[in-house]
Amino acid sequence: MWPDNRLLSLLELELPIIQAPMAGADSPELAAAVSAAGGLGSLGCAMRSPAEIEAAVHAIRAHTERPFSLNFFCHAPPRSDPERNRTWLGRLARYYDEFGVPAPASLPAARRPFDEALCALVVELQPPVVSFHFGLPSEAMLSRLRAAGCHVLCSATTPAEASWLQERGVDAVIAQGLEAGGHRGVFIDDWRAGSGQIGTMALVPQVVDAVEIPVIAAGGIADGRAVAACFALGAAGVQIGTAFLFCPEAAISPLHRTALEQAHADATVLTNVFTGRPARALANRMTRELGPIAPEAPEFPVPAAAAMPLRQAAEATGSADFTPLWSGQAAALGRALPAFELTRLLADEARAQLQRVARGG
Amino acid sequence: MWPDNRLLSLLELELPIIQAPMAGADSPELAAAVSAAGGLGSLGCAMRSPAEIEAAVHAIRAHTERPFSLNFFCHAPPRSDPERNRTWLGRLARYYDEFGVPAPASLPAARRPFDEALCALVVELQPPVVSFHFGLPSEAMLSRLRAAGCHVLCSATTPAEASWLQERGVDAVIAQGLEAGGHRGVFIDDWRAGSGQIGTMALVPQVVDAVEIPVIAAGGIADGRAVAACFALGAAGVQIGTAFLFCPEAAISPLHRTALEQAHADATVLTNVFTGRPARALANRMTRELGPIAPEAPEFPVPAAAAMPLRQAAEATGSADFTPLWSGQAAALGRALPAFELTRLLADEARAQLQRVARGG
Repeated sequence: MWPDNRLLSLLELELPIIQAPMAGADSPELAAAVSAAGGLGSLGCAMRSPAEIEAAVHAIRAHTERPFSLNFFCHAPPRSDPERNRTWLGRLARYYDEFGVPAPASLPAARRPFDEALCALVVELQPPVVSFHFGLPSEAMLSRLRAAGCHVLCSATTPAEASWLQERGVDAVIAQGLEAGGHRGVFIDDWRAGSGQIGTMALVPQVVDAVEIPVIAAGGIADGRAVAACFALGAAGVQIGTAFLFCPEAAISPLHRTALEQAHADATVLTNVFTGRPARALANRMTRELGPIAPEAPEFPVPAAAAMPLRQAAEATGSADFTPLWSGQAAALGRALPAFELTRLLADEARAQLQRVARGG
Repeated sequence: MWPDNRLLSLLELELPIIQAPMAGADSPELAAAVSAAGGLGSLGCAMRSPAEIEAAVHAIRAHTERPFSLNFFCHAPPRSDPERNRTWLGRLARYYDEFGVPAPASLPAARRPFDEALCALVVELQPPVVSFHFGLPSEAMLSRLRAAGCHVLCSATTPAEASWLQERGVDAVIAQGLEAGGHRGVFIDDWRAGSGQIGTMALVPQVVDAVEIPVIAAGGIADGRAVAACFALGAAGVQIGTAFLFCPEAAISPLHRTALEQAHADATVLTNVFTGRPARALANRMTRELGPIAPEAPEFPVPAAAAMPLRQAAEATGSADFTPLWSGQAAALGRALPAFELTRLLADEARAQLQRVARGG
């Protein structure tokens, strides 16, 4: 029994715990283990080719029959802006020199937005859940997903975004608090004006009041205490990212893993230097020397291609100076457990904590 | 019965609800009403003269025999920096012109740090609780306060600050999450590097793990759901600011009150343009045109004197364009109730929510 069972009923889950999609860091093994444990495993697809997405879905299904989620980005493709790209490559010039690598001759977009071809693929694959970040695809595409039996989730960073999503028929909304690692999902207002930077404690109850659909809390949740707290705020489930990066199934580099193990609460920044959009990562040389917010950075996701040669050169010397070390603010609470065990533990801790706080001191 | 009764025992409170000190916005009537209701009323003293502090304490004691708190700032007095002051007055020049007011001839420090004279006054007044912001006074002064029977609280914005405070003998620590209105209490690391900006959901459990003393959660707490959530995170009490600004006892201007009533979740920014230190306020013309963070602003609290003529001139025309509209991120959940009623309601809601989440859906 959970305080709110709507999400469990909606998505046919045993546990109200969603493993956050983390493009570039999650894996089919991670998603499958969380789903097998009774939660909802997710696969970030923004950096995967259609063939890789298809293979990952088969891998998940070979491991579990339980529901899982595919996640896509809905950003507008970047406008061509050679002048801005040149400016940014100029800012990076001294680092290309330092590592003795050539500046990239072109800056291809390394994250693909959801489009007609991906929609057709998803309709064919029929994942039980599809979740979106940076807003929604067209109404026509949403209809095709619904007709294929997919439940649709999407991130909101403000109550206004949550209401917008509900009006467009999403089944549940993910209230993404400021603590969350990775990209802020802000999509209505201009993140450059500071929009969508609300802490989970303040955001969740305001989103709960703004919509009728189930609310999934995200941001700063790493153990059962926070899961219990989110239910007290009115959430019907939680989405947890960073805590799952500690699992052996997470596809992160040893450098990223070591950085997470050493992280303290104050170690992260919101930065746009890695991709052009604000995202939470552990501070490193790149965020300190170029940001954390660089107003001149090209549009998402162009800066990722600009940084790639530096990242590769630095990593080859054992340095994470130019690596996006995605992390939320509760990394210090992370525990290196297999994802199946961690999912069960989070649920057990949360239920125990809910009982404990109700009993009184 | 509460999940953790240590704070109640320590401070001899009936309810684990502290009204946050809000220099310039609280009042003896507000503090007395919260204390009379069983919580802990607080009086921000950084902008009050010794005579005003003494009168306020007498006013509180005339209304209730229950515990209350006096709050002081422990910032280092600003270094004299005429060049920096000139630069800042230069940035404000066009506004002085617009309102036809002279630029201030001098910039006196409008907030007084805790010092020997204030310590002597507090020892004489013997408030049951003294709380500090921006760190602690000297060990000698702390000893005198303890000898006078005062319990000592202090804000922390990171687990490291909380540990530092525990080592120096504070009785309980206030974990101030990023959502909180007013000044960030950061005092160990450099706020200019982004330190101490951790959301309440992530901060509270990490502070609870870092110290043995009771932890008071603050930031984004405006109704019983958040109070219950903070207990789930391991807090022994909560400190609530913005929600108490809606009470008739709060000493805020009609302009500030109206702005709070219209605030939405995304309306605040962290800004240093009003005082030189980062503080959360509703965005207005001053934060938009000069900040929200102006690296060139003089040290705390010098900018307050620079803005005062603009604030007064604008307010005289019914405009809050230059007024520091302090607010946390949960202002939209505020309710205009007398402080006694609000205190009781928050506690009743929290207890009901704790029971509800334990029972299950």
